Order: sequence, then structure tokens, then C-alpha cells
Amino acid sequence: MNSPSSLLPASGRLGVLMPGLGAVATTFVAGVLAARQGLAYPAGSLTQASHIQLGTGTGSRSPLIRDFVPLADLNDLVFGGWDIFPDNLYDAARQANVLERPLLDQLQPELAAIRPMKAVFDPHYVRNLSGSWVKETTNKWEQVQDLMADIEHFSLVNQCQRLVMVWCASTERYHEPQPVHQSLAAFERGLRESDPAIAPSMLYAYAALKMRVPFAMGAPNLCVDIPALEELARLTGTPLGGKDFKTGQTLMKTIIAPGLRARALGVNGWFSTNILGNRDGLVLDAPENFQTKEVSKGRVLEGILDGEMSPELWGDIHHKVRIEYYPPHGDNKEGWDNIDIFGWLGYKMQIKVNFLCRDSILAAPVVLDLALFLDLAQRAGLSGVQEWLGFYWKSPQTVAGSLPVHDLFQQLNKLENMLRYLMGEEPMTNLDIRYSEAEPVEVDSETHS
Amino acid sequence: MNSPSSLLPASGRLGVLMPGLGAVATTFVAGVLAARQGLAYPAGSLTQASHIQLGTGTGSRSPLIRDFVPLADLNDLVFGGWDIFPDNLYDAARQANVLERPLLDQLQPELAAIRPMKAVFDPHYVRNLSGSWVKETTNKWEQVQDLMADIEHFSLVNQCQRLVMVWCASTERYHEPQPVHQSLAAFERGLRESDPAIAPSMLYAYAALKMRVPFAMGAPNLCVDIPALEELARLTGTPLGGKDFKTGQTLMKTIIAPGLRARALGVNGWFSTNILGNRDGLVLDAPENFQTKEVSKGRVLEGILDGEMSPELWGDIHHKVRIEYYPPHGDNKEGWDNIDIFGWLGYKMQIKVNFLCRDSILAAPVVLDLALFLDLAQRAGLSGVQEWLGFYWKSPQTVAGSLPVHDLFQQLNKLENMLRYLMGEEPMTNLDIRYSEAEPVEVDSETHS
Amino acid sequence: MNSPSSLLPASGRLGVLMPGLGAVATTFVAGVLAARQGLAYPAGSLTQASHIQLGTGTGSRSPLIRDFVPLADLNDLVFGGWDIFPDNLYDAARQANVLERPLLDQLQPELAAIRPMKAVFDPHYVRNLSGSWVKETTNKWEQVQDLMADIEHFSLVNQCQRLVMVWCASTERYHEPQPVHQSLAAFERGLRESDPAIAPSMLYAYAALKMRVPFAMGAPNLCVDIPALEELARLTGTPLGGKDFKTGQTLMKTIIAPGLRARALGVNGWFSTNILGNRDGLVLDAPENFQTKEVSKGRVLEGILDGEMSPELWGDIHHKVRIEYYPPHGDNKEGWDNIDIFGWLGYKMQIKVNFLCRDSILAAPVVLDLALFLDLAQRAGLSGVQEWLGFYWKSPQTVAGSLPVHDLFQQLNKLENMLRYLMGEEPMTNLDIRYSEAEPVEVDSETHS
Amino acid sequence: MNSPSSLLPASGRLGVLMPGLGAVATTFVAGVLAARQGLAYPAGSLTQASHIQLGTGTGSRSPLIRDFVPLADLNDLVFGGWDIFPDNLYDAARQANVLERPLLDQLQPELAAIRPMKAVFDPHYVRNLSGSWVKETTNKWEQVQDLMADIEHFSLVNQCQRLVMVWCASTERYHEPQPVHQSLAAFERGLRESDPAIAPSMLYAYAALKMRVPFAMGAPNLCVDIPALEELARLTGTPLGGKDFKTGQTLMKTIIAPGLRARALGVNGWFSTNILGNRDGLVLDAPENFQTKEVSKGRVLEGILDGEMSPELWGDIHHKVRIEYYPPHGDNKEGWDNIDIFGWLGYKMQIKVNFLCRDSILAAPVVLDLALFLDLAQRAGLSGVQEWLGFYWKSPQTVAGSLPVHDLFQQLNKLENMLRYLMGEEPMTNLDIRYSEAEPVEVDSETHS
Repeated sequence: MNSPSSLLPASGRLGVLMPGLGAVATTFVAGVLAARQGLAYPAGSLTQASHIQLGTGTGSRSPLIRDFVPLADLNDLVFGGWDIFPDNLYDAARQANVLERPLLDQLQPELAAIRPMKAVFDPHYVRNLSGSWVKETTNKWEQVQDLMADIEHFSLVNQCQRLVMVWCASTERYHEPQPVHQSLAAFERGLRESDPAIAPSMLYAYAALKMRVPFAMGAPNLCVDIPALEELARLTGTPLGGKDFKTGQTLMKTIIAPGLRARALGVNGWFSTNILGNRDGLVLDAPENFQTKEVSKGRVLEGILDGEMSPELWGDIHHKVRIEYYPPHGDNKEGWDNIDIFGWLGYKMQIKVNFLCRDSILAAPVVLDLALFLDLAQRAGLSGVQEWLGFYWKSPQTVAGSLPVHDLFQQLNKLENMLRYLMGEEPMTNLDIRYSEAEPVEVDSETHS
Repeated sequence: MNSPSSLLPASGRLGVLMPGLGAVATTFVAGVLAARQGLAYPAGSLTQASHIQLGTGTGSRSPLIRDFVPLADLNDLVFGGWDIFPDNLYDAARQANVLERPLLDQLQPELAAIRPMKAVFDPHYVRNLSGSWVKETTNKWEQVQDLMADIEHFSLVNQCQRLVMVWCASTERYHEPQPVHQSLAAFERGLRESDPAIAPSMLYAYAALKMRVPFAMGAPNLCVDIPALEELARLTGTPLGGKDFKTGQTLMKTIIAPGLRARALGVNGWFSTNILGNRDGLVLDAPENFQTKEVSKGRVLEGILDGEMSPELWGDIHHKVRIEYYPPHGDNKEGWDNIDIFGWLGYKMQIKVNFLCRDSILAAPVVLDLALFLDLAQRAGLSGVQEWLGFYWKSPQTVAGSLPVHDLFQQLNKLENMLRYLMGEEPMTNLDIRYSEAEPVEVDSETHS
Repeated sequence: MNSPSSLLPASGRLGVLMPGLGAVATTFVAGVLAARQGLAYPAGSLTQASHIQLGTGTGSRSPLIRDFVPLADLNDLVFGGWDIFPDNLYDAARQANVLERPLLDQLQPELAAIRPMKAVFDPHYVRNLSGSWVKETTNKWEQVQDLMADIEHFSLVNQCQRLVMVWCASTERYHEPQPVHQSLAAFERGLRESDPAIAPSMLYAYAALKMRVPFAMGAPNLCVDIPALEELARLTGTPLGGKDFKTGQTLMKTIIAPGLRARALGVNGWFSTNILGNRDGLVLDAPENFQTKEVSKGRVLEGILDGEMSPELWGDIHHKVRIEYYPPHGDNKEGWDNIDIFGWLGYKMQIKVNFLCRDSILAAPVVLDLALFLDLAQRAGLSGVQEWLGFYWKSPQTVAGSLPVHDLFQQLNKLENMLRYLMGEEPMTNLDIRYSEAEPVEVDSETHS
Repeated sequence: MNSPSSLLPASGRLGVLMPGLGAVATTFVAGVLAARQGLAYPAGSLTQASHIQLGTGTGSRSPLIRDFVPLADLNDLVFGGWDIFPDNLYDAARQANVLERPLLDQLQPELAAIRPMKAVFDPHYVRNLSGSWVKETTNKWEQVQDLMADIEHFSLVNQCQRLVMVWCASTERYHEPQPVHQSLAAFERGLRESDPAIAPSMLYAYAALKMRVPFAMGAPNLCVDIPALEELARLTGTPLGGKDFKTGQTLMKTIIAPGLRARALGVNGWFSTNILGNRDGLVLDAPENFQTKEVSKGRVLEGILDGEMSPELWGDIHHKVRIEYYPPHGDNKEGWDNIDIFGWLGYKMQIKVNFLCRDSILAAPVVLDLALFLDLAQRAGLSGVQEWLGFYWKSPQTVAGSLPVHDLFQQLNKLENMLRYLMGEEPMTNLDIRYSEAEPVEVDSETHS
């Protein structure tokens, strides 16, 4: 890692490339454009809206994060990507039906100017969609070369100083790691042989990492968490992050579960159902794709409520997660949780949480933060898995041997302390020893009064 | 403060004295008796059920808190208190209707043996109750002497090594601090003159602190937070804590609000209503008593979501709290919250939380933890306000000049780091610098493969 | 009552006059204009959207209600009214913030052309509003004359064949009937003396009824349910209806309570809270106005779940209703109900209903239906209280001596059977005797097979 | 049908036979025993707790149903049945964990005396259970003979005057009607050949109907709704009813949907999920069994909200139903519904219903009512499908050619009017013509005053 002093202000253009220019990506891009023009506030983004506390006691300060660490400026971002439909970003945003028309119309010229590059698509991995705007090449090795050419072309045309890539496309079908995923050598051999176990998302990740472009995996796909791509990231000194943006129900789960743990409350069961009607929901309506999501979401609880350490409290949690495709809601995802807890002497209580959220509204600022923080990481000389960005993931990737942290508050503490560390500040402990040592005296106040 | 090494194991009996032997106190006592006999598990209590993480990385350990710090053993606790009704604790527990009869019957001999001492009662402060088991003395100075005699008598009879007092009685009517509360001298003069601004809870607190008995205020009463009693605590070197046990809806609020803050989500409004049918609800059905509670509960949000620092996110939160007396629920308190939030570009979302909880089940372990931790504090030489116990309070008392922390996770961090400090361990930062410095090489893996 | 054959098709213009041109009235008017132009569908209106079943068995038909009974056509409606603010209906609708701007803009010319007449206003009856567009006259008798002149002028200018008046303004403060309300003579004497017990809404009702204009009371005000005005209605042969539009939470209550009754389920408690942020909520934030609403809403349950008849099931229902002013929601009223029920052997169950509704969207079609049905009633020769319209009221007015029906399904049955009666059709009994008389034979099918 | 006058008081013992002596049956039997002894009130049962209104206006009366129609007395009921486990009813009730132990202990002698007869069981139809107490015979014709012998034996031993049979066992796997189900002759041939398309429930139904024992199908099984068994019922003059007890979520749906229809509110979507942890949930955890349930529950909405008649309101309802096995809840079934509705001009609103119910507590009184009403039907000479009992079914069987009524209130009206009809009373129309014909006079009240 570079020493903190080496962190210079970000200068020049940062290109943000996204496989998948649908609801999430268009909401992200439109939002950055709107924020740039002062039309709307980028709530939900730590890099834009959050403060960080530094120091303790009377010397404590709380600057905005963006005033504390040298992040790329919103005005320096340029956007591009790939999609299986040829719509420009204005049309895609209209189609996604997340943002209201008056706002989109104000941004029409800029949005309409952004057109997707042709995507790599494999129907085997996403059954419920079929795209028309796809690369003709079918050999995976050639597809990777095409993607790298796309990246290079984008960078030149847009005069980018630096690039990052954030996967904003669909969840691929569930598949287990194979030998072809176990080493870079095997993987590259597999590319040449178009091994069916190499998913499209891996092609994008490979292309990015190979070109030293930091990569983030927004879906729960098996991708950057295979040894082959971790090896490539280390080899090229490129940061990567994954996986699966933490947005609605899982976000809430990683807020509430730490609260139950904090108070030593037991948990018997946690039933979560989720209804959503956007393209993401359609894709997940195929059982093989849902399985990928289910695995990603399912491990969250056991990472927070440790049944081995505290079997009396969390040794037998019945955790069930459902996602249902329900078109009437569109992008307005809704979660309903029933949590069966118990307290003192085992007495039972229940918590019901109904979260009427918006999928892309919660995901868009995550895209922004990951783009800016991964760029920061690269400039700071960090490479490989970025555990300190676990805050943003449903299924945080870890370096070999360590367990993922799911507790949102530990994740935030980790992220903030990393920023403090990079800038040479002390970590936050919430410890403030100001209690004066007692000097007990013979108590007889009355007689003296 | 004594040096950590001075913390010897607790030995001898610890007497726990409670003004108010109703639902909370009986649930607490019955629970300790049941846990002692292995009949039930004391979930909800950090001192009994929680682990604490020490060290980092491979050297990390997670002992039970009770194995880490020298707390009084459950077997060494003895119980007593005052009430305005003469029922023994078995009858009072039956009346409270919180614990099921089969459990209570198993504990009957021990519970029935505990009988309340006559209480100091002033109908002016609690309109909706009227008691029959009250002290005859009416002069407040004499009432204090009676209480001190009670304490002394209890200690002798039960052969107590140490004592703590935890207020488990009702919420008193709302009243503002007066001159009589501003200094110990004025207060003691007020006692002699039976100043009406001196509430019954202050008499108990005075008696306790005067005798160097740590005191905790479980209700939102104006009591230990007046300068006179803080002065007395410092003078006698006695720890105190308050106020208002953090149990149902406010507990949930201090879990969820930090989560919204963590993700930089804006909040427009937070409507909380609470229905409960126990004696606490009956008392709060009088507007003057509800006001005390309302003030205690109302400040929680602004302490977490700082509208001055982030006016775009939290500058205009409409926060409304209601408590409704609703007999059909008995002690099964139910909270319903509607939270109006907004994310990226101001788009609105809603969270609804329905908490079907149990008032006394959540409060009882708080009584236990406060008793044990205040006793620990005293043995460690800490006196006055114990900020590190803010975790347990709706309205955490602070030493002059500092702002209360309401975020449950900061509170927990503070508490745990205090324990680590007392035992000579490092504070927890969640910072784990294991990212190898990147050594970027000329990337050409393919040609080498 | 006229014979059914006398019901001729409605012809000529029907003027709809509304005291109070705020959220409800503007949503109603804009909706009728939009429906006329085919821009939107008038869901929620029985007169426009509902079918009615006629006959039984194979001869059964289900025409639209508007094709079955001769109602005024939407194209024949003209609109007017009074308000304490001078905004035209376009501006008032923008201010009310119920309908979206694109729709309002399409209707702007027609809406902007409608301007309120100056209102009669008495701050004593509505504390939380103060109006600027009010009549200068202060004597109540003269105010009535002014209102009658307004009506006459409106009718002439708009070439109305017939008129109806529907109160769409605020809830007035709670007040009990006085001697001045007990007879028409006393009331008219009171008008001359400007008796303070005569509320503004009574002035409008008097003016309408005096001129044979049917009148409906949309708020819970003490108004048409005083003997003086009932006497006037009978005297002039004018239909009247009231009171308090049945919209959100009470609507849901009169749906669910009949369901519990149908299945003989017991009820211990019903807690209802309601949060809303529109002008109606602001007015109700004054306790004296809330009391009016509370009384209107409180009687609903006992009218459906008869505790005298079935004390085992409904003899002890703890029913509590709260309305809270909560600005973040605007017109998007939200109700939350907790219903404590019990079934077989007294075992307890709970129902929670969270209704995210829209106040004016639910009220507007009620205004339309009442206008059309009261006009129908007048043309059919019906006068005085119209019990068959109880379907639309939180607090249905009855003719002396009869109890109100609150069950929504009985109310609908009543309404529909009245329509059937007026048109000479048989009432609906759901009885269909098609069960053939059994002819038991010696059973020995097997031997025959 | 016999003439009403032929309905004599029920005399002698009525045997209630149940295939399946699990949670529902034991709760039913224990409840009848408890009610007989005055230990508990049989809420939820129309035959025991409901009144019926007779006549109109001043001559109206409201007797208890059981005082109006001659039903069997609770004291005359005797109980028996079959199960795949040999536990007596006391042990089975303990195992079911629905009723609390103190109540069961009071009824122990009577409950323990009832032991199941060996059941006919076919694992092909219920995958997730395996029973030990099953008949040895494997040929279906012989199994039927065994069941008839069981019935005869039970009747003799218990000196029954009459019998009814109510299916209280599990949901069988989904299967479509086959040729073997199309006529009695084909069915009886199939019995002899042990046709695999003949499910166990059909064997019980055949045995009952053959012996003129009325039969009710409490699960959604394909059973009495096949032509072969309808033919048998007509042939033997025996009433039958089905199918699928209407208890939790569907009950609520048939309450709320009629309310939405009554007010002409549109519906876009209705998402229902259900979590339950009893044996019923375990059985339904097998997809082939869930399918049977899904089909039964799915048709409810379209029967109430007619999309063909009103395409603008209900032409495109996205209705999705889920049932999830969730052990922490046991018999405490919980339903959560999200209903997307729209009103005036298409504006959207939402209703969320969270029903914390108890499966067997809601089902037990349905068993009682069906037993008593089917017995009444038989005594009244009614045979075949009893449409008037549709009130109790999720999927009401109809006579050929008619559509099922799902609206709970129409169902109740139908049931009550049938009772009125049987007893020679007028049907209820809610029509009460008391509006005096208006006699408009020249209005000039003021001049006369």
C-alpha cells in the first residue's frame, strides 16, 4: 500500500463502464447528471452525502467524506457500457420506469447521447431474457478481445485518465466452481476452448482486470470470486469488489440482526419475502437464476448471529428467503419480514418489517460509491479483494481464510477506519475515558450544610 | 479510576433493592431465580448471554462477558424493595400476568418470601394509581430517614456485602427543574421543608446515594439528572445511571435510525404509536405523566440523525410519538412505526415496523445488567454518571457538556471498549490492514501461459 | 313516492354546488371533466362503474347501474361552490396536490373558469384555518339570504334544470344539539338573532333545503341531523343525506367487522390510528374538531358487532380511534388497525390492516354518486332522510326510531334493492331453491353395475 | 325437499366420523367436550353462537340459529375416526400443540377414550408423511368394505341414530379427473381393479355415501367433486359438501374482495403469502400437494371480481398465492397480503393485511357446523351438493352449470335464507320502504313563523 501521503487529488476524467444499461445503470447515470446540475440531491451515497467523524472529545471534527479523501469529482465522470438492447440511455430510462419523466426530459440530450456497445450474451445463463444487440463472435477468447477493444476505444474517445467497471446486469444462473475457474492458466485455456462453465460476467471481469480496470460485481454471479480472477487481479495490481449490491431486504436484515445481537435476543425464525416486478424480478423468476440469489442472501444471518458461539440464542434459526416476480409493483420492490425472537426466559416476541422500497433508487448510489472508492483504492495502491468495501455487498468477498462481516455497523466502522487510516487519522473507538477517579470522602453533607 | 489490576472478583452478597415491585421487578427476580435453577435461559442480558471479541486477526478471542469481567454471580444476589401494594412477589407476579403460571409455581416459595417495604407515595406525581401500602410519615426529610433505615435493615438481615438500587416503578408527572434541584444544599433544605418539587423518586435516589448505594432510574422521571443528586453522587463516590430503560419501540428506533444514517438515506417523517395495557400504560394514560415519557422518547432521533450537519437528509424530520393505553394487550406492548425515507434524487420509500413485544420481558434483563454493571463500576472506583451504560437508556444521561449517544451500535461499542479498557485490552476498531501493497507488473499473463 | 313508471330520463343541466372547494371538491370536478373526455376512468363510483344483478338463475342480467336507472349524465353536470380562499379550481387543485400536474394541465381551461363564491366562515367552528374570501355580512339571517341569492344566480347563469349541494368543507368543532335546533321555528328565530349555536354548515343546508335543493353533509358536522332541518326537508319535499363520507379506515372497518360477525368470531379490542397531512388533518389537529370526528367514527363497531345480543362475542370490545396530523403524508392518508379477535374456545388471534390510501381519491366518487342519487331521489319524489344511501356515510342518518346500519354489505344490498324497487324489479335474496327433493331408493348400485 | 313442517327436532345420537384425527379433529372434539361442560365458549360456530334476523321493521326478531332450526344438540354428539398414527385423542391433541395443557387435562378421560381406527393410506398421495396405523388390505374394493364395516361397527357400539363424516386429514397430491371418475360404474370397476387414480379420500367418501352418511371434504382434494360420487350421492339421497375449509387467508380474502367490489375499486394485483408450521404445512411443502391447494385458493378472486363484466376494474389482476412451511410458527398460521388497488382516475392505493391466526382454531367450528348442517340437510330431505353451505368452503362445489359464489356475504345471505326457507320465514332483502311520498307545498315557512 502506498503511504497516505501519496494520495494526490484525483485529476482527469474517470470513465465508468457498465455491463447492463438497464434500470440501475440509467438511474445512476441520470442521477449523477442531475446532481451535477443541482437538480436533485444524491442521497444514499456516502461519497456525496456522508460526514466522517475524526478525532475525539473537543478536538472532534466531522467533514464530508468527499472533503476528507481525494475522490474523483462528479464533473469528471463519463459513462458507457454494454447492453443486449440497443436503446440509448434516455430510452432505456423511460423503459425502466424508475425516474419521473419531467426529470428525464431535462437530461434528455446527455442521456440520449450515450449508446450501449453490443453485449456478450449467453441465453444459457439468463433464460427469461433474449437480446438483440449482441456481439457476433461466439468464441469466448475472441469475445474478450472484443471487450478489451471496446474499453480501449471508449477510453480514447472520452479522453479518460482512469476507468472502473461496475456490473449492473442480471443475475446469471446458479453454477458451482469448476476446475476451469481454479487458476488463471486454466481459465485462459478455457477461454480459448469456449468452456461453457465460463459465464459472460467472467468475460467482462477478465477484460477489465487484464487492462487494470477495477471491477465490481453488482449481481450475485459466480465471477470475481473464482481463484482465476483473483489471481489476475493480484497479478495486475487491480482492486476488485463483490458481490451483489446490498439494497432492500438484505440491507434491512443487516441493520436489524446486529440490533438483536447487541441486546442478546434469541432468534427462532426469520421469514423474508420480496415482491418485485422489474426485469430483475423477471430474470429471477427462473429457478436456476433465483438459486444464485438465494445462496447470496441466505448466508447473511449466520454471519451476524453466530449459532456456534451462542447456541442458546441462535443455534436453531429457521431462515427462509423468497423472491416473487410480481409485475404490478414494477421497480417498487417490497419486502416483508417476519422475525420470531425470544427474550428473557425464552418468552417469544415478533417483529414484522414491511419495506416499500425502490430497487434502482437504492442501488444507484452504491454504483457511484463503488466506482469512486475503487478508483481511490487503485490510486492508493490497493489491489485484489477490498474487504473494507464489504459495506456495499450482500455477499462480501473476503481474502482467503477470513470470514465475511455482514453487520452493517461493523462494515461501516471498517470502511471509515480504512479512510481514516489512508489519511493518517486515528481509528474511532467510541472510548472516551473522562470518568474522574472517585475520591470517596466521609459523607456527612447534611451536617455541613 | 482504579487501575485495572485492582478489579478483584466480586465476593459476598449483592443486595438489589427496587422501588416498585410490579411487572418489571417480579419478572426480573423470577427470572434470576429460574436461571439459577437452570429452569430458563436469561436471554436479553449481556452480562449472562453475550460474548465480547478481544484482539484481532488470528489472535482474536470471544469469551463470555461474565467470564471476562469480575461480575457478581447470580447466586450471590438477594432481592428487596418497596411497593404501594403489600403483595409478596409471588402474588405480584401473578397479578402482573407476564410469566406463565407453571414457572411461577415452581418458584413460589422463594418469591412469596419477598415482601415489599412500605413505599413513599405522592398521588400528585401519579394520578392514575392509588396505593395502600405507604409510609405514614409525610415530611420528606423523615421519609428519607425511613428509607435509609429500610436499606440498612435490609442489608443487615440479608448479610449483604454490597447494594445497588434500580427504580422499577412508574413514570411520574412531568415537571421542570426548579431552584431546589440545583444544589445539594438547596435540595436538603427542600427535604426539610417538604418542597412539592421534590418527587418521590428523588427521595429514593437521595437515600441510596447518601449511603453509597449505586442508583439507576428506570423510568423517565426527573431524578438523578438534577445537579443536587449528581453532586451527592460525586461527593460520596457513587455511580449512577439513567434514565428510562430502553425496551420496545425506542430500542427498535435506535437500531434502525443508525442503519438509515449509515446508508445516507434521508428521513422526512417518523410516526410511532405504541399500544399497551399494563399498569405502566394506565399511568401514562394521564397526560401529565405521558409528557414525561414523550420528552424522553422524542430526543432519540435528533441525536442520531443530525439535521444541522446534514440538512439535506435530516433537516426536516416530522417525528411524532404516541402511547395509547389499550387494555386488551396487557403487558404485550405493541409498537407500530411508519418511517418516511428518501434516497437517490429524493425518491420516497417507506418502512413499516410492527413490533409485538413484551414490556417486562425486555426490561428485566436490563435491570439485571444495570445492577451488575453499576456494582462493577463502584468496585472499579468509577463514580457519578456512567456514560458507558448509555446502551440501556432511552434518554442517556451525560456528564456536563457532552451530547448523548443514541445509536445502539455506538453505545455497544462504548460499553464494550470500556470493559476492554478496565481489563487492559485493546479497543476494537474493525480495522484490519491486510491488503498487500500492489506490485503492478507488466501484464501479459497470456503470453506466459 | 312516485310510482316507478314516473321516473323519466334526466334531462337538462344539473348544477352541483359545494361549500368547500379544496382537495375533495377539486378532485371530484377534475375527475368528472377527465372522465367526460375519456382521459381517465371514474373507478370508485357506483353510478359510473358498477353493475347490478337483476333476476335470478338463467334469467339473470347485470346491467351497469347507470344503464338501469335514469341518472343525470356526466355531460350535463356543471359545478360551483364557495370557499374561504379565492383560488380558482385549477389553482386550488394544484395547491391540494392530489392529482398529478400533467392531468390538471390538460383540464386547466375548464378548471380555471370555476371560481368560488365568497364563503360564510366562523373561526369559532374551525380554529386551525383562517380565510380571506368571506362574506361581509355577519348576521346569520342575512348570510342565508346571501347564500340563496348565490344559488339563484348560479342556477340562472349556468342554465341549470336542477341543483344539488354537497358539503365538501371541513369538520366543525364539536357541539351538542341545543333548543335552537329543535324546531324550524326556533331555528329561524335563531338565524335572525345570530345564535352562536347555529354553525356555518347549517346555514348552507338551510339555504339549500329552503330552495328545494337536495343536500348532503360530507363532514361529521352537526347539521342536517337536527330536527329543524329535517322538518324543513319534509316541508319542502327535499331529500337529504348524511353524514361524513365513508372513505379510508372506517370503510375498511365496515368491510372487516361484518366478516368477523359472519363467522361468529369474538372481538376483544380494535385499535385504529390514522395519519394524514392534508388540510383535513390540520383542522382535526384541534381537539374540539377531532371530537366531532371521533364521535362519528366511534359508533361504527357497535352498530355491527352487537354486544347486547352476543355478549360472549362482542360484549367487551375496547375500541379506540386516533387521528394524527402528520404532514409528510399529505393527502396520502394511512390507516393502521390492530384487531384482537378470538375464536373457538376463546383462543386469541390478531389482524393488522395497513391501508395506504388517498383521502380525496376515495371521497371524490362519493361526491359524484351522492349528487346523482340525491337528484334521482328528488325526481322519484323521495324526501327527507335517504336511509338507502347509508352506504356512503360513516355515520348514517336514520329516520326517527330506527338504528343505523353500518355493515357495508347490508348497506349495499339496501341501496341496490331500492334501485330495483324504483325500477320495478324483484329484490335480491341470494336464495335459489334448486335442490331436488331427494328420492331415496334402496341403494344397491353395485349389484346393478 | 320435504315441506318445512316435516322438520322434526333432532333426537338420538349423531356420530361424527373423521378421517384424520390430527390438529383439526382433536381441536374440534376437545372444544365440543369443553363447551358441553361450560369450560369454554364455542366462538366461531354459527350453529352455536350466531343469531339470525327474521322479519322486518318492528316485527323483527333475532333468535339464535340453534333455537330457530332443529339441530342436533352438542350433548348428542359422539366422535370417532381413522388415523395413520395410533395415538388416542388426548395424545394426539398434546402432539398437535394447539390447545393449552390445562384444558386438555380437564378433558383427558373423554379424549383418551377415543382411539382411531386404522386408516387407508397411500404414500403416493402424501409424500411427506408416513404412517404406521394403516389397514393391511391393499385392494381398494376391499378397503372400502373395511371402511363400511368400521362405520357400521362404530354406529352399533355408540348407538348412533345418524352419522356424518367430515374429512379432517391432509391434502392429497394434485391429480386431474380421469375416465375412472366419470361414472359410478367406472368408479366401482376401478375400485375392484385398484385403479391408482382413485385416491384414499375417495374411498372414504364412497363408503360414507353408499351408507347414506353425509360427507364433507375439508381438504382441497379431488374427491366429492367427481361425477361418480355425485351420482352416488343422488342415488342414495345423501347430502355432500366441499371443498377445503375456508379458514385463514382465504377467509380474509373473501371478506375484503367483496368490499372492494362494493365500492367499485379496481385491483391490479393481490399477493398472498402464508407461513405455517404444522403437519398441514409439512404436507404442503411437497410441490405436488401444494398444487392442489394452490388451485383451490386461486379461483377465489375471479369469482368475486369479475374481470369480464368490469374489465376496467378487474380485467388484469395479478394474483399470486404462496404457502411456506415455517416450523417456528407451529399451528399459528400467519398470512400476509399485499393488495394493489386503484380508485378515482386510476390512482393507486395499497392494503396490507397481516393475519396472525390459528389454523385449527378457525377450522374446528367449521367441522361442527358442517356436521350439524349436513345432518339437518339430510333430515330435510336435501341430497347431493349443498350450495347453501358454500360459506364454509374455499372452493365451493356447485351443481352442474352454476358458478360458485365466493363472496362471504352472499354466501351468508344464501345460508341464512335457506334456513329461513326451511322454517317458512321470508327471505331477507334489507329493503324497507318507509319513505313517505313527498307532498311538496309552497314553501314559505318563514312567513308563517
